[in-house]
Amino acid sequence: MALIVQKYGGSSVSDAESIKRVAKRIVDARRAGDDVVVAVSAMGDTTDELLDLAARVSPIPAPRELDMLLSSGERISMALLAMAIHSMGFEARSYTGMQAGMLTTADHGAARIVDVTPTRVREALDEGAIVIVAGFQGFNTDTRDITTLGRGGSDTTAVALAAALGADVCEIYSDVEGVFTADPRVVPRARKLHTVGSEEMLELAANGAKVLYIRAVEYARRHGVMIHARSSFSTGPGTFVLGPGMTAPQGAEGEEMEEPIVAGVATDLSQAKITIIGVPDVPGKAAEIFKIIAKSGANVDMIVQNVSVAGTGRTEISFTLPKSDASTALRALAAEQGDVGFENLVHDDQIGKLSVVGAGMRSHSGVSATLFEALSTAGVNIEMISTSEIRISVVVRGDDLAEAARVVHTAYGLDGDIEAVVHAGTGR
Amino acid sequence: MALIVQKYGGSSVSDAESIKRVAKRIVDARRAGDDVVVAVSAMGDTTDELLDLAARVSPIPAPRELDMLLSSGERISMALLAMAIHSMGFEARSYTGMQAGMLTTADHGAARIVDVTPTRVREALDEGAIVIVAGFQGFNTDTRDITTLGRGGSDTTAVALAAALGADVCEIYSDVEGVFTADPRVVPRARKLHTVGSEEMLELAANGAKVLYIRAVEYARRHGVMIHARSSFSTGPGTFVLGPGMTAPQGAEGEEMEEPIVAGVATDLSQAKITIIGVPDVPGKAAEIFKIIAKSGANVDMIVQNVSVAGTGRTEISFTLPKSDASTALRALAAEQGDVGFENLVHDDQIGKLSVVGAGMRSHSGVSATLFEALSTAGVNIEMISTSEIRISVVVRGDDLAEAARVVHTAYGLDGDIEAVVHAGTGR
Repeated sequence: MALIVQKYGGSSVSDAESIKRVAKRIVDARRAGDDVVVAVSAMGDTTDELLDLAARVSPIPAPRELDMLLSSGERISMALLAMAIHSMGFEARSYTGMQAGMLTTADHGAARIVDVTPTRVREALDEGAIVIVAGFQGFNTDTRDITTLGRGGSDTTAVALAAALGADVCEIYSDVEGVFTADPRVVPRARKLHTVGSEEMLELAANGAKVLYIRAVEYARRHGVMIHARSSFSTGPGTFVLGPGMTAPQGAEGEEMEEPIVAGVATDLSQAKITIIGVPDVPGKAAEIFKIIAKSGANVDMIVQNVSVAGTGRTEISFTLPKSDASTALRALAAEQGDVGFENLVHDDQIGKLSVVGAGMRSHSGVSATLFEALSTAGVNIEMISTSEIRISVVVRGDDLAEAARVVHTAYGLDGDIEAVVHAGTGR
Repeated sequence: MALIVQKYGGSSVSDAESIKRVAKRIVDARRAGDDVVVAVSAMGDTTDELLDLAARVSPIPAPRELDMLLSSGERISMALLAMAIHSMGFEARSYTGMQAGMLTTADHGAARIVDVTPTRVREALDEGAIVIVAGFQGFNTDTRDITTLGRGGSDTTAVALAAALGADVCEIYSDVEGVFTADPRVVPRARKLHTVGSEEMLELAANGAKVLYIRAVEYARRHGVMIHARSSFSTGPGTFVLGPGMTAPQGAEGEEMEEPIVAGVATDLSQAKITIIGVPDVPGKAAEIFKIIAKSGANVDMIVQNVSVAGTGRTEISFTLPKSDASTALRALAAEQGDVGFENLVHDDQIGKLSVVGAGMRSHSGVSATLFEALSTAGVNIEMISTSEIRISVVVRGDDLAEAARVVHTAYGLDGDIEAVVHAGTGR
């Protein structure tokens, strides 16, 4: 008998019918003999509707009250899910984040988990019940107030519960089948991975793959939790995210006999590029610039500095950042133009980022050569390059990104025999 | 500086605009120098919508989960109300029933308050904050589960908080101006009472007046809380409900110099009458019959047994009960017809009940004579009579009820000089 933690997102519990479908799925797992703990998000658009209500009563809602408000969302979905399971003849109990022992910092809207003490969850499991826990929410013991975990919160709730309970696996359900070698909407011959290393998963997620939140993958890696990313619309296996020393259960699908050099190709159209022209080429200028940007709250990703243009004593610095941060960063830089002494700012939101990720890069040479050659053959121009130990990223024109992803996917031998079935939805 | 507990029902906080209006009202009280604690119901139809969702996932929702579900309703309204107050520049904090120390029995859906320990409420008041508490909900310390108080729960929350905090007054806001000498929709010359005794209020509420819930009035009487029933749509005073030894604040309106004999006339069209014909006139039959009805769960109100019809050895028993209980009671009786030995059942749902209530009845004779004479003059036939120490009730034809109420109201000298302004709504 295994202990399984399952997580269902808002789109899996968007109405009464889908709640009943999820309840049946949970009951099937219980019938198979396993203990089941479920973390559930708020129904469909509930959170957005609550945020909208808040905006209508207050321009800047008090953070403590916003968390109190938002935490009602999972209360609704978890109670309904427990009722639906009950009416199928199984004992089920729902617990709020506080009742489940999700202790967090007091940072409303972005609380971090500091401890998980799931005493009541264990008791309920011992009594044979299926346990439903509110995702996304926690409790601070100093202020005795309800908190929410912010983006990716429900995935993190599930992984944290799995870690605290010593669960055998944490199944994260969404509307996609698992982790693919590329986004199947961009690369039709993308294959679903049976397994992916947690480091690779972190790089894929950080560079555009939307199946799992980085935060949950990090938590799982740090606490030795095996994640199984799978679809709530099918019963087949998804992708096992393996931390150090983990091995996936033997699935019906073929195991990779040897670790592939490249796990997948991630694409990202959400970034913009800012180029600062005519920067005085003196020591400390880059530090000055990126301090200004950091203070503005913008998250810089890639950075490239050109060599100084001969005789001018000036250089160019380009960097990428989320499109949504661009105007903030531009305003912050423009305000300091006099002090920094640059000549001009150029904003480009028509870029695309392509990343090749693979733990095998550590022990194999020539990985980058394959990338550059494939892009060159396809006539795709590379504007920026950055690398990590297990990743190479390039910035290209946004219009070229899909073609680039396809040729690179082929070049690394990742193409499947048949085209993947693409589900509608955002991948969350 | 006084401590005021205010209660706002669902219709007072039905959308963002009305929440802002209530917030302004609360802030005005705070500005006047008083400490304010607010008990709030779920927004508008939220509770019904949640019940509907529950019915769609489960034919008989698990009671624990139903309470978990319903308790999300006040969480939403209280957080929004606190935000709205915040954005007006006042510190406000919302607390769930559990956080406010509303300890109850474990009877889900109909929990009774066993203790109120509002430590956090007091702390917040001491720090100058306005406190918003979720009405209707509590917490059981044995099961550590959320409970709800059932019908009239939010009023009871407010009164219980007022009692535990030693508040000067508990203001219960609704869409009516206060307690009237009769329902102004039935008796246009009904007057608003400046004060009413808590015993009288209990009799009025039990006999059709819908301004306050019996349960809250009882709690207030037992714990010495002064209730002020008033309208959230106007700023004028409403009606003070006075327990033993209490005196109302001096209002702009004239005080009654001497206690009136009759406080008001209550009307009730929600009851039905069942007559059991041909009941064997032997000892123990009535007990047998009402045991059957009690077991069916029906709540009997008035009972009349006729004298035995000469020579037959049989008699008739009539009783009234809520229309909604009638079919249950009829089925239960029909099932036992053989054992009880009665001849027939007659169901009459066209009755009306009129009650005259007044603490002065204790010391005044002739009160009932005035009632019977007024009805006789108006040609209204009396079908049943029952009395308590401070009440006389009669059952008449439903069609006659309004006319009966008007003539009786006049006969006791209750008519006002002008016709009352009637607001739309149910009186809750």
